[in-house]
Amino acid sequence: MSDFETALSEAAARVEAELDTLLAVDAAPEARLIEAMRYAVLNGGKRLRPFLVLQSADLFGVDPMASLSAAAAIEMVHCYSLVHDDLPAMDDDSLRRGKPTVHIAFDEATAILAGDALLTLAFETLADERTHRAPSVRAELMLRLARAAGAHGMVGGQMIDLTADGAVSDIGGVTRLQRLKTGALIEFACMAGPVMGSASTPLREAVRGYAHDLGLAFQIADDLLDIEGDAAETGKAVGKDADQGKATFVSILGPERARSQAKILVDQAVEHLAVFDHKADLLREAAQFVIARRN
Amino acid sequence: MSDFETALSEAAARVEAELDTLLAVDAAPEARLIEAMRYAVLNGGKRLRPFLVLQSADLFGVDPMASLSAAAAIEMVHCYSLVHDDLPAMDDDSLRRGKPTVHIAFDEATAILAGDALLTLAFETLADERTHRAPSVRAELMLRLARAAGAHGMVGGQMIDLTADGAVSDIGGVTRLQRLKTGALIEFACMAGPVMGSASTPLREAVRGYAHDLGLAFQIADDLLDIEGDAAETGKAVGKDADQGKATFVSILGPERARSQAKILVDQAVEHLAVFDHKADLLREAAQFVIARRN
Repeated sequence: MSDFETALSEAAARVEAELDTLLAVDAAPEARLIEAMRYAVLNGGKRLRPFLVLQSADLFGVDPMASLSAAAAIEMVHCYSLVHDDLPAMDDDSLRRGKPTVHIAFDEATAILAGDALLTLAFETLADERTHRAPSVRAELMLRLARAAGAHGMVGGQMIDLTADGAVSDIGGVTRLQRLKTGALIEFACMAGPVMGSASTPLREAVRGYAHDLGLAFQIADDLLDIEGDAAETGKAVGKDADQGKATFVSILGPERARSQAKILVDQAVEHLAVFDHKADLLREAAQFVIARRN
Repeated sequence: MSDFETALSEAAARVEAELDTLLAVDAAPEARLIEAMRYAVLNGGKRLRPFLVLQSADLFGVDPMASLSAAAAIEMVHCYSLVHDDLPAMDDDSLRRGKPTVHIAFDEATAILAGDALLTLAFETLADERTHRAPSVRAELMLRLARAAGAHGMVGGQMIDLTADGAVSDIGGVTRLQRLKTGALIEFACMAGPVMGSASTPLREAVRGYAHDLGLAFQIADDLLDIEGDAAETGKAVGKDADQGKATFVSILGPERARSQAKILVDQAVEHLAVFDHKADLLREAAQFVIARRN
C-alpha cells in the first residue's frame, strides 16, 4: 500500500469507529431503525468525503476529535442519500458495495426512515459542541451542509437526474447536474476544515478551487467506471447510465476526451494547493486517487 | 370567530407567506422539486406548531420576524414527515387535507426527494442569521430540532408505529410512541420561544410542562377523531387505526376515559402557564383548541 492508501484506510477506520459510537445500539422499540442506520453506514466504504474533511481540517490545525465528528456527519449525509437513491421508486438498486441495499435487507419503509434519521443525525452531530466549541462555527457548518445537501444542492441534482431524459444533453447541463448531485457535498467536505480552522479568505478560496475541480474529476471518473468498470470490483451494477440513455461526461465527450479532461482537472486541483506546503500532500494524492480508483 | 381562531388564522397567513418566500419558484431544471415542496407545504394547514412557536416567542419578547422564520422551519419538518408518512411503503395515503398526497399529485421519487429537501431546508432556515443574530441560539435550536425530529424523536416514533403490531399494547407503550411521534416536535415548537428569548430555567420548565401535556392531549384528540371524525371534515381517511388493530389511547382507555384524560391534560397544561400573566392567554386557548377541533 502507498502512504496515501494507508492514510485513507486509517482515516476510514477512525471514521467507522466514530460512526459506530454515534449510532449506539439500544433496546428501545425503535431498535430496528438504529440497526438499519448502522447497516447503511457501517459498510466498509472508502470514506473519501470524511478523509477530505480530516485532511482539510489538518491543514488549519483543527483538533482531530472535532474534525472526526464533522467527518462522521458528512458520511451520514452521503449514506442517507445512497439509501434513498437505491429505493425502488428512485434508482431501484438491490446491490450496494456488493451487499443488499437497505430496502432489500430491511424493507422500504425502514429504508425511508433510516435515511431521514441519518440526515437528521448529521445535523445533530454538527450542532453538538463536541464538533466545535464556537457556536458560530457550528452554525456555519450547518448552513453550508444544508445548502450543499438541499434542493439547490445534492437533492436538486438527484431530481434533475431522475427527470433528465434528454433535458440535460450538453456539457453545461451535465456539469451543473453533477456539481449539484455530487460536487456540492465534496466541496462541503473540503471546506469544513477551513471553516473549523477559521481560515483566511485566500486560503478558503484555494481549498474551494481544489474542491471544485476534484468534484468534477470524481464524477467523470464515476462515469468512466460505469462503462469500463466491473460489477464485481465496483460492487454495484455497471452500464446503467448508458442503458437508461442518460447524458454523462463520457457519452458527450467520449471516453478518451473524458479521461484527459479528468486528468486536466486533477492537475488544476493540485495547483490550487500550491499555497500550502507538504501539509497538503495527502490532498494532492487524493486528487490522483479519484481518477485512478477501480471502485 | 373567537379571538383565538382569529389569532390562529392570522398566524397561519403569516407563516404561509413566509413559506412562500422561502420556497421561491425558479426556472432551474430542479423546478419540479420546488413545486412539489410548495405543494406539500402551502396546503392551508392549521399551522398549529408555527402558532406555538410564535406565541411562545411572544412571551419572551422575541423579534416577530425571527420567530416567523423558526415557525416556518418547524412547519417544513412537520410537512416533510407527512409527505414521507403518506408514501405507499408507509401509511399509503392518497388524501391529505382533502387533496391528493404528494406522491399521487407528482410521483413517489419526487415525494421522497421533496421530503428530504424540506427537512434540509428547515435546518438551512434555522442556520440563517435572519432567525437569530446569536449563533449560540441558532445552534441550540438546530440541536433541539434534530433531537426532536430524529431516531429518538419523530422518526423513531414513526418506526415504532409501523412495526408495533402488538408490541405496543399498554398505556406506557402508547404514551412513549406518541411522545416521540408527535410530542417531541410539539415540545420543540413550544420551546423555540424560550430558547430564542434566552429565558430563565424556571420559565423554560414552565413552558416545557405545558408542551408535554399539550402534546399528549393533542394525540388523544387525534385518536378520538380517528374513530369519531368524519372523512370530509378531517380531510383524510378515518378509522385506520382500528382497521389496522393499532393500540391507541382510545383503544386502551375507551372513548370516555380518553376524553376525560385529554381534558385533565389540558387543565394541567394551562396550570403550567400560571407564572405568565395574560400574555399566555392564547397559549391557554390553544390547549383548549387541540381537544375541541374537528380536524
